[in-house]
Amino acid sequence: MSRVDELKQMLGPDNVLTGADVESYVNDWRGRYAGRALAMLRPGSTQEVAEIVRWCVAHKVPMVPQGGNTGLCGAATPDGSGDAVVISLVRMNKVRSVDTDNDTMVVDAGCILQSVQQAAREHDRLFPLSLAAEGSCTLGGNMATNAGGTAVLRYGNTRELVLGLEVVTADGDIWHGLRGLRKDNTGYDLRDLYIGSEGTLGIITAATIKLFPLPVAQCTALLALDSVDDAVSVLSHARKGFGAALTGFELIAGNCLQGVVKCYPQQRIPFEGESAGKPWYALLELSDSESAEHARARFEEVVGQAIEDGLIQDAVIAENMAQSKALWHLRESIPLAEKAFGKSIKHDVSIPVSRMADFVKTTNAALQAKFPGIEHVTFGHLGDGNLHYNVARGQAYTEQELLERQDAVYELVHESVHQFGGSISAEHGVGQLKRDVLPRYKDPVEIALMRRIKSALDPHGLMNPGKVLA
Amino acid sequence: MSRVDELKQMLGPDNVLTGADVESYVNDWRGRYAGRALAMLRPGSTQEVAEIVRWCVAHKVPMVPQGGNTGLCGAATPDGSGDAVVISLVRMNKVRSVDTDNDTMVVDAGCILQSVQQAAREHDRLFPLSLAAEGSCTLGGNMATNAGGTAVLRYGNTRELVLGLEVVTADGDIWHGLRGLRKDNTGYDLRDLYIGSEGTLGIITAATIKLFPLPVAQCTALLALDSVDDAVSVLSHARKGFGAALTGFELIAGNCLQGVVKCYPQQRIPFEGESAGKPWYALLELSDSESAEHARARFEEVVGQAIEDGLIQDAVIAENMAQSKALWHLRESIPLAEKAFGKSIKHDVSIPVSRMADFVKTTNAALQAKFPGIEHVTFGHLGDGNLHYNVARGQAYTEQELLERQDAVYELVHESVHQFGGSISAEHGVGQLKRDVLPRYKDPVEIALMRRIKSALDPHGLMNPGKVLA
Repeated sequence: MSRVDELKQMLGPDNVLTGADVESYVNDWRGRYAGRALAMLRPGSTQEVAEIVRWCVAHKVPMVPQGGNTGLCGAATPDGSGDAVVISLVRMNKVRSVDTDNDTMVVDAGCILQSVQQAAREHDRLFPLSLAAEGSCTLGGNMATNAGGTAVLRYGNTRELVLGLEVVTADGDIWHGLRGLRKDNTGYDLRDLYIGSEGTLGIITAATIKLFPLPVAQCTALLALDSVDDAVSVLSHARKGFGAALTGFELIAGNCLQGVVKCYPQQRIPFEGESAGKPWYALLELSDSESAEHARARFEEVVGQAIEDGLIQDAVIAENMAQSKALWHLRESIPLAEKAFGKSIKHDVSIPVSRMADFVKTTNAALQAKFPGIEHVTFGHLGDGNLHYNVARGQAYTEQELLERQDAVYELVHESVHQFGGSISAEHGVGQLKRDVLPRYKDPVEIALMRRIKSALDPHGLMNPGKVLA
Repeated sequence: MSRVDELKQMLGPDNVLTGADVESYVNDWRGRYAGRALAMLRPGSTQEVAEIVRWCVAHKVPMVPQGGNTGLCGAATPDGSGDAVVISLVRMNKVRSVDTDNDTMVVDAGCILQSVQQAAREHDRLFPLSLAAEGSCTLGGNMATNAGGTAVLRYGNTRELVLGLEVVTADGDIWHGLRGLRKDNTGYDLRDLYIGSEGTLGIITAATIKLFPLPVAQCTALLALDSVDDAVSVLSHARKGFGAALTGFELIAGNCLQGVVKCYPQQRIPFEGESAGKPWYALLELSDSESAEHARARFEEVVGQAIEDGLIQDAVIAENMAQSKALWHLRESIPLAEKAFGKSIKHDVSIPVSRMADFVKTTNAALQAKFPGIEHVTFGHLGDGNLHYNVARGQAYTEQELLERQDAVYELVHESVHQFGGSISAEHGVGQLKRDVLPRYKDPVEIALMRRIKSALDPHGLMNPGKVLA
């Protein structure tokens, strides 16, 4: 019996895809990585995942776990050998249980993020993880990459939203760790080790996640600003004035908004005159557990003070849910509207908030010195110190010329990030994309410790080989 | 040269204690564990800690890291062989830097928790970790045990309050990981692995910790309740009504308050008549970023509704800071006032909040069936599902009789906790105290993974041997 036949016997023929059927699973959606696979497997239960892993260990077959295949660093794409199997948990997509008094929910890792949010809402609860790919990414993929998104400022990254895990280890054992406890100090933190390991230590099959009360009201506003310095001051002021009610603080360069309305003429920048041409904007969101009136009054007091202090040049407050959605839609359209700038070189970086303004100024200047006329496409989650610091060809370069400079641009930006005490991957992970530069920016002791953990938890070296660590 | 002389040459003679001078460091403060040591070492720098570790590895000398020696599970006490050195970071007690725009602070691990809180306050910021031993415990000890305390409901455990670490590994290398980043997805989460490892994987020498805005106002109240069921309902109601402004929710059995006022007659229960004799109370704290008036109005609305709904029988609101402190003092006096009940058998457990009421009823009944007349001394952090479910001799037993039943009581309570999906150590850790029962309540796969990590990161087996894992 062939290997594929063995797998078909194990999972049923419908759940073992081969040939042309695997195409969309062995290439990443941005078209950056292309791989091959022995087969794409769709187990229907944790038990089946464990069987697959044991079979792979017995046959020395590498495994590539995959969620919604929306990753940005190639962690879910197999190499070109065709030796590996892709393991997709897409069939494991049930909400197993909801506990409203404990504010927790147990969900399969294959659930689409949006359906998890929806399930929480049906119980009058919030699951706050939110990001652009939420309609197609899975919670398993979010956990594998410790996904961030737009609500980290208030609720934390994925790691902080998960209480317990069920994991199939690299040996095919099942760790039953679906605890719904906010305090549990009985040993090493395996949960946070599997979260963010990008499928290189085992396969997360389910999680106990935290739920929160739904806010009673939200207040969204777009602020027009003169500088990143002012944005940082406004953030500090808003943190103090709103406390934990501050649930969003996004920084947007003026040209990003211009790009959005150029690409999507049905959208508009909600300012007139000088305010419509400011170099920077911030999208601020306040969540209130009291009332829309209270949110609005609070907003006007705190933001009003910042306007008086000269930190904010102009502000537009959403008057209703539709306007609030329109403001967020402007922000969310930026990644897609980047095509207005032509192909760009993307950096997902984090910097201490206090050094953000200096980082942008210094790095912009260094890029202009080396690549005159290159265009800066900068936006991100300022509240978390996370910038999508992208670089486009502007009028000065052709796409080809930009591509030729890609490695030099990466290097300049990553060196600058490193000098400012930042990280070269804030929320997208390492995957294949940043694997080889990682040792350059990470403490060698840390890399050595990571290697020890990889060997200890994946002794056969078959869990997503070639990702994160070379 | 003797070993002790070598150490004195390395650290200076004043920083190597032996003989009678080590007494207070080789015994735990509760008098439960007594050990011996070759010496107690007081390094003055991370470099010296690394030198000590390398020396210990070369000479095969076990190491016992120690903070303020306030732990409750014997993790900081050496065994009786006298082979080990105790390593105290008490001299490493500086705030290295404060960054108010980034809301972070870099501190040595030997800093006393209270001095860290104070340093934050001097910069108009809150470091929210707060627990009974804060005047003498160190941040290093807090990190080693992933300490919890009274603010977890809002701010999380120690793990959630730390962004970066500096660690001396079990090989004597220094991991420079003092990042001040809220997002950093460049590899495995070593930070959360060292935090909570009780000194068995390496020695944390410094941390970058998160700061928060100081609340503008707080509102504290004591609620008189009929049952734990009602307490759970009030918690749910308060989470919804107050959102993240709910910063404390402590459950207190009526007899605990009676014990406090019996022990400390200068304190009083702030209720009259029937309300003074309720079976349960809850201490609720609301933190407001707006004003005292707003906090009070909000409190009255939300708590007023719960009173109308019959969930709360009576409520006392602190009218000023002194009254607020008096209410918290009642709560904080309970552990000391437990002597009013005679020696007690202590359990630091967590249970999903939704099962809390049932757990208390079921376990109380099972204890009474097996040990008639035994007294329940129950209090804890209901908001985190964390109970200090202690058991005293009552009128029915002498101290000796209680002690004879200790193992049976432990077993009954731990079995019940396990059946309710809880943890036998919510916030105190494992140490020596719970090491041998751990394998009984933890998934064997999880224990096996923990052993692999221990071997990988402490290959010589010299880091705090015999703690957490046998």
